[in-house]
Amino acid sequence: MSLWFTEKQTKDFGITAKVKQTFVSERTDYQELQMVETAEWGNMLILDDMVMTTEKDEFVYHEMIAHVPLFTHPNPKDVLIVGGGDGGAIREVLKHPSVEKVTLVEIDGKVIQYSKQYLPEIASEFDNERVEVKVDDGFMFIANNKNAFDVIMVDSTEPVGPAVNLFSQGFYTGIREALKADGVFVAQTDNPWFKPDLIKQAFKDIKESFPVTRLYTANIPTYPSGLWTFTIGSKIHDPLKVKDDRFIEIETKYYTRDLHKAAFALPKFVKDLTE
Amino acid sequence: MSLWFTEKQTKDFGITAKVKQTFVSERTDYQELQMVETAEWGNMLILDDMVMTTEKDEFVYHEMIAHVPLFTHPNPKDVLIVGGGDGGAIREVLKHPSVEKVTLVEIDGKVIQYSKQYLPEIASEFDNERVEVKVDDGFMFIANNKNAFDVIMVDSTEPVGPAVNLFSQGFYTGIREALKADGVFVAQTDNPWFKPDLIKQAFKDIKESFPVTRLYTANIPTYPSGLWTFTIGSKIHDPLKVKDDRFIEIETKYYTRDLHKAAFALPKFVKDLTE
Repeated sequence: MSLWFTEKQTKDFGITAKVKQTFVSERTDYQELQMVETAEWGNMLILDDMVMTTEKDEFVYHEMIAHVPLFTHPNPKDVLIVGGGDGGAIREVLKHPSVEKVTLVEIDGKVIQYSKQYLPEIASEFDNERVEVKVDDGFMFIANNKNAFDVIMVDSTEPVGPAVNLFSQGFYTGIREALKADGVFVAQTDNPWFKPDLIKQAFKDIKESFPVTRLYTANIPTYPSGLWTFTIGSKIHDPLKVKDDRFIEIETKYYTRDLHKAAFALPKFVKDLTE
Repeated sequence: MSLWFTEKQTKDFGITAKVKQTFVSERTDYQELQMVETAEWGNMLILDDMVMTTEKDEFVYHEMIAHVPLFTHPNPKDVLIVGGGDGGAIREVLKHPSVEKVTLVEIDGKVIQYSKQYLPEIASEFDNERVEVKVDDGFMFIANNKNAFDVIMVDSTEPVGPAVNLFSQGFYTGIREALKADGVFVAQTDNPWFKPDLIKQAFKDIKESFPVTRLYTANIPTYPSGLWTFTIGSKIHDPLKVKDDRFIEIETKYYTRDLHKAAFALPKFVKDLTE
């Protein structure tokens, strides 16, 4: 028998991947969770029927959500990750020697548990002494912390289910206050082919809280359309004005110093969403 | 009944699109050809079970294969397109006022015929007086022309079926000779996720014929992995050293002056294929 997982990225289009085995399929307190082994992408985490990460292409998302804001900040010490229960963002953040502490606030403990078990190369640094993990509501955590972080990364699912509050103006205002005076914020903001309105709205909302707001892209083959966007909001530091000597050597498979800037050169139809 | 077209981009992974109606399904002298209407992408041309172009995302491929080499050349007058029977590359080339003549050599006349019928916004310029169309073998056409073109674009299918000769060192040598002394060549060279060896080999082969050889990328959501590569081979002109005043205003939906350069900033794992 040949089993295929199909994610309908829109009601009329999707991707389909051959599944070798299913490790986990359960309804957690927050969402549907599947962990499967695919023939093409290795192990794959699926939440509410959407691919969250795979062993083969996870490096793109995790490098690009982490290194762009971390190099934008001149000296990040305290980093907060909201979501990111697979641990990939933690792994990338820890490549920066300036970072003293990474706090991860993930609402669904099951994501962490199964990622440790089935995605060991992604969830590789949960036991690092610089890491603190809280199984908690990111929205409330942000609301209760002021002037505390150099960089905040929102590594969330789409704005459905548990992440719906993480795409709201109130949340961005909270993030601004949770950041220190020169803090940098980044969020994944979906894809421009199927969700142009989401990008437009998120960009507009983030811009109301941050003097410097910029959109950048990365190619993630298992995400809808293959073209993913991230929006950076910064109080002072501009991701396009990072000094050359700020870029220290780190080991990556996607991110490069050249790409840091090039990722902000947007296709015309994407640029239009930010204007 | 709900009909879905599934392209297996690898044996274990694919895309799937809801089909509203099938206009054409036939075996031409060269390949399987389908023209269908999809709910997500509008009309779609499929050759040998691979998506060639769709109404919704065609602009990316056609703008990026045309404008990068055309702006790299300081004054392109004679342009040759090998393949490209849907007409999208012609449409983009004609946006450049310096171009006096575009010759298109497409081996399969049926592609042109059905594109005119079902993709009228793509195949919009076949009757333009600057356009000459030859239904002929591109490999032989190249072999029979010397010192004739400013820009040659290879807008082919994958190296299966009729396009297999278009990914050979002999072909690249022929192109070098068919170009004028300062000519520029570009070819689509597939995707780095599933075909890294093809990119590596094509880049190496093109580099043996051209002093300046560079790889660039574009996001094409209906192509495998969403990350497509093009390789430019140039006798003199460097796509990264285009003078600012060379960039005249043209109407585009993807290509921008900034993206012209940014498209050459490669993800690390792609850059590695060129070294």
